[in-house]
Amino acid sequence: MHQTQWSAERPLPPPVSLTSQSHHEKPPEVTCTSRGTPGCPASTRERRVKASGAKILRGGAFKPRTGPHTFQGLGYQGLEYLAEAGRTIGLPIVTEVMRIDQLERVAAVADCLQIGARNMQNFDLLKEVGRVGKPVLLKRGMSATLEEFLAAAEYILLEGDGQVILCERGIRTFERAWRNTLDLGVVPYLRQVTHLPVIVDPSHALGRRDLVIPMAKAAVVVGAAGIMVEVHPDPLRRSEERRVGK
Amino acid sequence: MHQTQWSAERPLPPPVSLTSQSHHEKPPEVTCTSRGTPGCPASTRERRVKASGAKILRGGAFKPRTGPHTFQGLGYQGLEYLAEAGRTIGLPIVTEVMRIDQLERVAAVADCLQIGARNMQNFDLLKEVGRVGKPVLLKRGMSATLEEFLAAAEYILLEGDGQVILCERGIRTFERAWRNTLDLGVVPYLRQVTHLPVIVDPSHALGRRDLVIPMAKAAVVVGAAGIMVEVHPDPLRRSEERRVGK
Amino acid sequence: MHQTQWSAERPLPPPVSLTSQSHHEKPPEVTCTSRGTPGCPASTRERRVKASGAKILRGGAFKPRTGPHTFQGLGYQGLEYLAEAGRTIGLPIVTEVMRIDQLERVAAVADCLQIGARNMQNFDLLKEVGRVGKPVLLKRGMSATLEEFLAAAEYILLEGDGQVILCERGIRTFERAWRNTLDLGVVPYLRQVTHLPVIVDPSHALGRRDLVIPMAKAAVVVGAAGIMVEVHPDPLRRSEERRVGK
Amino acid sequence: MHQTQWSAERPLPPPVSLTSQSHHEKPPEVTCTSRGTPGCPASTRERRVKASGAKILRGGAFKPRTGPHTFQGLGYQGLEYLAEAGRTIGLPIVTEVMRIDQLERVAAVADCLQIGARNMQNFDLLKEVGRVGKPVLLKRGMSATLEEFLAAAEYILLEGDGQVILCERGIRTFERAWRNTLDLGVVPYLRQVTHLPVIVDPSHALGRRDLVIPMAKAAVVVGAAGIMVEVHPDPLRRSEERRVGK
Repeated sequence: MHQTQWSAERPLPPPVSLTSQSHHEKPPEVTCTSRGTPGCPASTRERRVKASGAKILRGGAFKPRTGPHTFQGLGYQGLEYLAEAGRTIGLPIVTEVMRIDQLERVAAVADCLQIGARNMQNFDLLKEVGRVGKPVLLKRGMSATLEEFLAAAEYILLEGDGQVILCERGIRTFERAWRNTLDLGVVPYLRQVTHLPVIVDPSHALGRRDLVIPMAKAAVVVGAAGIMVEVHPDPLRRSEERRVGK
Repeated sequence: MHQTQWSAERPLPPPVSLTSQSHHEKPPEVTCTSRGTPGCPASTRERRVKASGAKILRGGAFKPRTGPHTFQGLGYQGLEYLAEAGRTIGLPIVTEVMRIDQLERVAAVADCLQIGARNMQNFDLLKEVGRVGKPVLLKRGMSATLEEFLAAAEYILLEGDGQVILCERGIRTFERAWRNTLDLGVVPYLRQVTHLPVIVDPSHALGRRDLVIPMAKAAVVVGAAGIMVEVHPDPLRRSEERRVGK
Repeated sequence: MHQTQWSAERPLPPPVSLTSQSHHEKPPEVTCTSRGTPGCPASTRERRVKASGAKILRGGAFKPRTGPHTFQGLGYQGLEYLAEAGRTIGLPIVTEVMRIDQLERVAAVADCLQIGARNMQNFDLLKEVGRVGKPVLLKRGMSATLEEFLAAAEYILLEGDGQVILCERGIRTFERAWRNTLDLGVVPYLRQVTHLPVIVDPSHALGRRDLVIPMAKAAVVVGAAGIMVEVHPDPLRRSEERRVGK
Repeated sequence: MHQTQWSAERPLPPPVSLTSQSHHEKPPEVTCTSRGTPGCPASTRERRVKASGAKILRGGAFKPRTGPHTFQGLGYQGLEYLAEAGRTIGLPIVTEVMRIDQLERVAAVADCLQIGARNMQNFDLLKEVGRVGKPVLLKRGMSATLEEFLAAAEYILLEGDGQVILCERGIRTFERAWRNTLDLGVVPYLRQVTHLPVIVDPSHALGRRDLVIPMAKAAVVVGAAGIMVEVHPDPLRRSEERRVGK
């Protein structure tokens, strides 16, 4: 009885007016254009990703890690590797930006800019990324309500041209069988209250390979515009590497 | 890194040994037999439920309500109505039991006994319902971990013949757009660690009619053995009644 | 902005009317009378408890355990030990009841009946314990809101003479440094909205001996009517026993 | 049984080594020096704050707001007002920084830099604030575990000279009677595992004036190095203003 129930009948409250469906006659398409030169040679690994139907290539150059003593990503060098891989197979790329002074340099290379879950309420970063004019992939904060999620998208939309993709990536719960709880109800709900496309990231949410395929299928069934999924040419070996600390 | 990861490779810890898949060669079938006499006349409403493909009819005679000043259910009178409806259309019935001294009388009529979310850790009720010898539909507690959920099923299984159906019905989260968050990852996860069938209740979980159909479809896609869903011959009128307090 | 703010100015909603302060001119006293015969010999251990200022002796005969394979308590034999200890040192006793058919036998011996956190919404048990006419110690459910906590007390009060003690015993949170998060704000808040006395249980809440003393002091400072605390004549040895599985 | 139990006996894991008590012989003092010129005239309001025993003056020039349509703070103009108030009454000032390019200008005026709860995992901001060389007041994230809180402090400590004050400001829970749940167990726990001083902010945590005084007292009892509290010369009028939307 205390719940906020937004629906097509009940217009959204002002704080998130730009994300509201009523502002738009039909859902806009978010277009991420690749700068790829598909003629170039590419490694088998990247080719397999494209052959599997991927429409965009994601990789992390700057990594938001809980503690400072963990590997923080390859930085701009990693960004170049990612850009090269994208160009080679002819796929646009998306990568996370973590600070305002990275925006220009990352935007010069990436086709879509990702805002990570931990930065969903880094409001100044949201404002500045909105000014870049590139599509933005906004991940939901780990304990964020949908009202807060939409309000974060609103920060971006206020500055630019409205190319925001919302990404459900799991919420923190008491469950210990997986990393986060993937909240699929978000998809049909958001489809009613916003025109922004919603994608789902089952890999980072659950942190368990065995649940990725069923949950990815379910994401499509509830209306996700896409899924973001971790890939590895030899996943069993990857798990082994992780176990021994590589 | 703190998560408990049960999998086919990692056997379940002893506390939930009876719920473990390794105890069983193939998943047992839970059979709820109707005592219906399908020749009897039935109301259009009940016939429509059966015609829609329902395999079992659920109704609440005893209602667990947060406060004592709210309608507490029709009691045994309600149970009789439910039994009659089931007999008429030839469907088995399931209903909630809330106290041990109801067990005998309810079991004499119901084909399956439901333990509600608030009673998932009412351990004595679990033990006693296990002794009845009827299939038990066990709903997950509102903030219960899956380890606790399986441990509750274990209480039932220890006493009887193992006919337990697990029901995911949403967990409490910070989200206010709906009543509870429906946790569909539970289904593929439990299918790996237990032989018990898992069903999903999107109606009670979300408390929003508009999300029931997409989430029910997703439940099937992730491997649910069934869904439990609220029905009403005229849902829009029902919402209206609720608004004016009927 | 979504929060329910009860205060002296805003009367409580009807669901919890009996727990409301406005029903009562002054806070009632909950009296637990001992049947002790202080002349009897007592072990040093029990004498030390009383000498430390304890007003009531708590012990668990029936133990609500997550799984059925764990020690379930000594049962009625344990109840007798507790009763004897209470009589010997001349302190009233409190112990948990878990099922309705235990009520009569436990009430014949115990001076106060405890309802555990897992049974806070076992509504039939609440009703029946309310009819016994003994003071009831009601523990807050692990994820219960204060509205639900008061509504549970209301179930008891509706049946009897209003001798209910509310006990804050920690809530489930994401923190892994302790068992539950002790929520001390409950005390000054409840003191405003209900006449029922509120006590605090830092031992079960936190599950860490090193935090019990500071948190117990804080409980008194915020207005708790008492604390419930685990004692052991040689706590270091106890921890050692626990480590080796005794 | 799944909990991480840090204690004096069990050294902290490497990710938070700089926050660990064992690195330091005695707790360092965090010194915030005022640039005040106490001879200047000051308004009665500011004088009353100092007369009440305040050691440092906090005010927000840049405000992290959930949505972009809400008042975002006075910005640098607000910072100047705050600085002037501090100088006038001779108290050091603390204020929040939200973005890296504000650091220099804010640090030129403020005696202590605050990192807000929403930026607790804005890792680049943490690194940069650590390089400034001013004391940092780090607020705990709304759903952050203590392990994550300490890891955030570690980001700051790695860059500078270790002047970090930890601030408990409430965690998100299911409770709707207040804004956040003030988690006082944090204080005695952190005092065991870190040498950093811990303060408590009951005003922002609970969002209820009636609970501030008892909880502030309790914070001191459990060992807080200080409290941060909202003040207003006429709180009742303030509440009235808030109700009518001023």
